[in-house]
Amino acid sequence: MDCLDDLITRTGAAGFCLYATSDDPDMRYLTRFTTHDPVPVIKKPGENPLMILPVMEVERAERESVAQIITRQQAGYEEIISTEKDPSRITAALIHRCVQGPVVVPPRFPLGLARALEERTQVILDTGSTVGRMRAVKSAAEIDGIRTAQRAVEAAMEQAVRMIRTAGIRDGVLCQDGIPLTSEQVKYAIHTTLLRHGCTADGTIVACGEGTSMPHWTGDGPLRSNQPIVIDIFPRHEVSGYHADMTRTLSRGEPSSAVCDLYRAVRDALALGESAVSAGVSGAECHQRVKDFFTEAGFETGTEGFIHSLGHGIGLEIHERPSLSPSGESLEENQVVTVEPGLYYRGVGGVRIENLGVVKSPGFKRLTEFSTEMIV
Amino acid sequence: MDCLDDLITRTGAAGFCLYATSDDPDMRYLTRFTTHDPVPVIKKPGENPLMILPVMEVERAERESVAQIITRQQAGYEEIISTEKDPSRITAALIHRCVQGPVVVPPRFPLGLARALEERTQVILDTGSTVGRMRAVKSAAEIDGIRTAQRAVEAAMEQAVRMIRTAGIRDGVLCQDGIPLTSEQVKYAIHTTLLRHGCTADGTIVACGEGTSMPHWTGDGPLRSNQPIVIDIFPRHEVSGYHADMTRTLSRGEPSSAVCDLYRAVRDALALGESAVSAGVSGAECHQRVKDFFTEAGFETGTEGFIHSLGHGIGLEIHERPSLSPSGESLEENQVVTVEPGLYYRGVGGVRIENLGVVKSPGFKRLTEFSTEMIV
Repeated sequence: MDCLDDLITRTGAAGFCLYATSDDPDMRYLTRFTTHDPVPVIKKPGENPLMILPVMEVERAERESVAQIITRQQAGYEEIISTEKDPSRITAALIHRCVQGPVVVPPRFPLGLARALEERTQVILDTGSTVGRMRAVKSAAEIDGIRTAQRAVEAAMEQAVRMIRTAGIRDGVLCQDGIPLTSEQVKYAIHTTLLRHGCTADGTIVACGEGTSMPHWTGDGPLRSNQPIVIDIFPRHEVSGYHADMTRTLSRGEPSSAVCDLYRAVRDALALGESAVSAGVSGAECHQRVKDFFTEAGFETGTEGFIHSLGHGIGLEIHERPSLSPSGESLEENQVVTVEPGLYYRGVGGVRIENLGVVKSPGFKRLTEFSTEMIV
Repeated sequence: MDCLDDLITRTGAAGFCLYATSDDPDMRYLTRFTTHDPVPVIKKPGENPLMILPVMEVERAERESVAQIITRQQAGYEEIISTEKDPSRITAALIHRCVQGPVVVPPRFPLGLARALEERTQVILDTGSTVGRMRAVKSAAEIDGIRTAQRAVEAAMEQAVRMIRTAGIRDGVLCQDGIPLTSEQVKYAIHTTLLRHGCTADGTIVACGEGTSMPHWTGDGPLRSNQPIVIDIFPRHEVSGYHADMTRTLSRGEPSSAVCDLYRAVRDALALGESAVSAGVSGAECHQRVKDFFTEAGFETGTEGFIHSLGHGIGLEIHERPSLSPSGESLEENQVVTVEPGLYYRGVGGVRIENLGVVKSPGFKRLTEFSTEMIV
């Protein structure tokens, strides 16, 4: 919390403030509280973060969060709403009762509330995303949280591999008990396995065939043999809130030689990318080294071929700092990043392989423990 | 989209703009696109919304979204990043290339991006939350989406009821196959049932005993007989993005007379609340009628007793307009709302029953089809 106190002091603010649900990673990080409704969180120098809560949440927050709690009523809610009806102005008045003077707020702070607060005090933008930077470097407990989620991902991937490996094949279509095995069935098996491990996911990718040239196509319908099957699983652990993320490209039987070429290049790029990650190296350099490798190997890096970033930080947010991309800053020890090179060609398909691990000084400590073999 | 065009014209803006992932309901509503990374969306009068996308998303967006698409490259990304490194300023420059002139933005628009845009043009705040108001009134297809999610909720609740009804009882603890039946097991059964129906949920409540006095305690550990068990299920259908929401309070065998008193009052309050909902009636009036009913029946409505709003709109967002609360505005036909009275007492427990349905002119068409009986 020292960085946040420094920010407050440096900007001459009376406090730092955000207004969000616990889907906002900054909010969850500062309070460890979960809520589907946005609440004001105020941090003053030398104090724990303070949440302004409706009465119905107080008892739970006392048990579950690390924040101080004040009820809306204690902050003057009844008096405020007797004269004010605009929701943003009501929230601004509540915040202003708890922190007199200028407030510094994160880049995602809602403009509507900022404008309402500006009627009462100065609103200073934290252009440096202080909490986002704090979140990027993980404690041992946070790394454990990511590792726990990663073990769930691996159990789910193992289940998916087993289904694909043991399926029958009829006219090039994978079958289970005589009927086509679909993307939907494999996702269901993945999601139930994740649930057993305390994780929930949405957007899970089980995509087969030429459509895998769209990196984020989630896939549907029957799976086929001798075709790339991209599986990307990135759940959140419900209790801790931390994510994991892993992608594998599988094929039941050998796919086309074009897909095999993509696979070999991506597998080598993964090793190169992992070897590039180290404290003090920039995310931009990691990305560039892989991009150069693909270029030298004859692959495109514009609208086809390698068309996305090499990787991203991961934690309470699925994509967070640091970025392994052209704008990636210098990596720091104990950041957790994914390395996920991929190649995508319309009419051919896509191959992506993704691991995650901890930035060390020097090096990269992989947390992922799962085969990268394609053919199952 | 006419309301949005009116807003643009009325405010003298060149376009409406938001910047969000598809977790933002306004974003999903305007584009029907799903993405875990925020993208700029621009709406100009008489045109479809336009998304500025990275190359990797273009092919998928062409298939899956209703928006127009321009790549970041087409919007001048390479040129912009050659001189600009700040992420907010980069996004602001991209937006400004696509909409020259003032932009009007929703209340949740991120302040960091607003400040960067203000270096280039005027940023007008849509204090009226135009898209939020558009979303509040549902089309037949949207109501179908909610109904589909609600059927999933009912299948999941049926599964939970069956587990509780058929459990053995040993020393007041519910048992399955001789071992204690836990909140976690019932949640797992609920979530797998939801998955089979294409829905995912987090925050599902299966809470037993005195702790149910905390309305949003999600519960843990063994379930007990003769105790209130509050089950609140509110998933999102993954394909449509629409939510449903239902709460039941169950008890295996008769609970304390205090809990029975709460149950009878809440069941009657539910009927009263549903009968109060009608187009032209305000959400505040619905809330007040139920509050008055509880007061007359001798229950508190401050820090214990009835301590939350009567209900809320539901759609792409779990809690959206209109609100059945002291600040609730006039209801309109084809809004979809929950009615969820509850009573909560420390040392006793809580009872909540929640249905949802469509505001009609006049009346309330309940979509929920599930028994409200407590004792199973």
